[in-house]
Amino acid sequence: MSELFGSIEAGGTKFICMVASGPDDIRAEARFNTTTPTQTLAEVIDFFQKQRARLNAPLKAIGIGVFGPVDLDHASPTYGCITATPKPGWRNTALVAPIQQALGVRVAFDTDVNAAAVGEGRWGAGRGLQNFVYYTIGTGIGGGAVVHGLPLHGLVHPEMGHMRLPHDLQRDPFPGSCPFHADCFEGLASGPALRQRWGQPAETLSPDHPAWELEAHYIALALQSTVCMLSPQRIILGGGIMQQAQLFPLVRQHLRSYLNQYIVSPMLEEKLEEYVVPPELGSRAGGLGALALGMEISEPHG
Amino acid sequence: MSELFGSIEAGGTKFICMVASGPDDIRAEARFNTTTPTQTLAEVIDFFQKQRARLNAPLKAIGIGVFGPVDLDHASPTYGCITATPKPGWRNTALVAPIQQALGVRVAFDTDVNAAAVGEGRWGAGRGLQNFVYYTIGTGIGGGAVVHGLPLHGLVHPEMGHMRLPHDLQRDPFPGSCPFHADCFEGLASGPALRQRWGQPAETLSPDHPAWELEAHYIALALQSTVCMLSPQRIILGGGIMQQAQLFPLVRQHLRSYLNQYIVSPMLEEKLEEYVVPPELGSRAGGLGALALGMEISEPHG
Repeated sequence: MSELFGSIEAGGTKFICMVASGPDDIRAEARFNTTTPTQTLAEVIDFFQKQRARLNAPLKAIGIGVFGPVDLDHASPTYGCITATPKPGWRNTALVAPIQQALGVRVAFDTDVNAAAVGEGRWGAGRGLQNFVYYTIGTGIGGGAVVHGLPLHGLVHPEMGHMRLPHDLQRDPFPGSCPFHADCFEGLASGPALRQRWGQPAETLSPDHPAWELEAHYIALALQSTVCMLSPQRIILGGGIMQQAQLFPLVRQHLRSYLNQYIVSPMLEEKLEEYVVPPELGSRAGGLGALALGMEISEPHG
Repeated sequence: MSELFGSIEAGGTKFICMVASGPDDIRAEARFNTTTPTQTLAEVIDFFQKQRARLNAPLKAIGIGVFGPVDLDHASPTYGCITATPKPGWRNTALVAPIQQALGVRVAFDTDVNAAAVGEGRWGAGRGLQNFVYYTIGTGIGGGAVVHGLPLHGLVHPEMGHMRLPHDLQRDPFPGSCPFHADCFEGLASGPALRQRWGQPAETLSPDHPAWELEAHYIALALQSTVCMLSPQRIILGGGIMQQAQLFPLVRQHLRSYLNQYIVSPMLEEKLEEYVVPPELGSRAGGLGALALGMEISEPHG
């Protein structure tokens, strides 16, 4: 009989919870609005308690993928907490401790984008790769990475949406929408940046609108820096903005041109279509990623 | 009796070879001009053969840290080669195979900057850290990284000098000196960029010349992206340009201002002096790094 795991995709508007043994065996799923921490966590805990009773089976572990920034340092007193979020009421909220205490189960914890990267690595576009990057480009821009087979942590965790990019104010006078850095990657290329620059929601811009050419330009610049910094074996681009499928060929073409054959690899030339790809798990990357986190802490490594 | 290792710091102007059991026990050292691959490799091989005979001891392994780009993929037919270098005569030059064959010894191979990072991790400013970055800022700009305790590889290896940066042409009309990307990090902030922008060699610019304020600005922008991409626990800045000690406080001050408290860590606030640091091994980082590479392939991991 297959072992069951729990997953929590903890987002700014919804918490999506699952009980499953894998992507093809999902036993229960529920969505809760992200209201206050107390109420939302109570609903999440109640869900897992009820499902555990209904299925009459223990949960081997629960994985949480959460909007950041979060504290991933096991030695820190605030490990397992959301830290400096601008989301009202959620600053310094503990997630791991209350869930662990209420359910008596091991809890794995990472950013939503690292979770998505781990999920794509297990079941999707990162399968078989030791080093790759996952971006979500939507309401915000976040990046997760797997390096040497493990999600990338360090001082804290990557915040790839806040890297700096060239910004030609002649071509694009929009000053950028990031409240912290103005024209960082997120400030130039997120959904809100597109809405503010063009005066209409990104999803209402026609596929041949010049917005997409400029968007592909910024994404390709960010990918050039990504290739130079992390040398990933593949870059997976997900999130609402990347639903605009016309972006993929434009991004690849600009990336190739900007790298200008300095880094020699067939993946950056004739195999670029295999190098910059959409997620295979699509909108399920977050939930399945959290599930994969739970499964990975239950496995012996190395 | 301590085991002996060889190291080769393979640079564009000199190959520096050592036989040692560690930084405090260097038994032999020699420098050879980087002429043709055939001649230079013959001198290197002759050195190790003679020293092995003189010391009457085997070499457990040899580590090579080399100017890039190089092929680090063990599955590739050109593993252990310098690949697309602009250096005349050195394109597609095998280093690992001829040394391994002539000396019958295990050879470890990495970029010069990854080697320097490994050396700083073993004996210098990266001691005890799992994730950190080493930059050399001089004739070129290169970056190496240790992630999860191992040098960062992937598709190829990092080429951090070629990340893209904001470039305000009003403030700095210099178009950039990189033949591939014009105003990438290396194109804006390397020694040759400084010489071209200000019309005199960098080392002749006085410590209060405005060149250094602009230089610190570009380095801090690159470090902001580095923090956002890799979340290192420390950033080590070496190379000739960083001999200008006035750069360190300027870089820290700009980095703090540009990050703007978005990423919460004491290392990015009151402990910034411990976060952005010079190498402890100084000019020995390259040679000792290559030595450390040789030592690490001889050790069981995990």
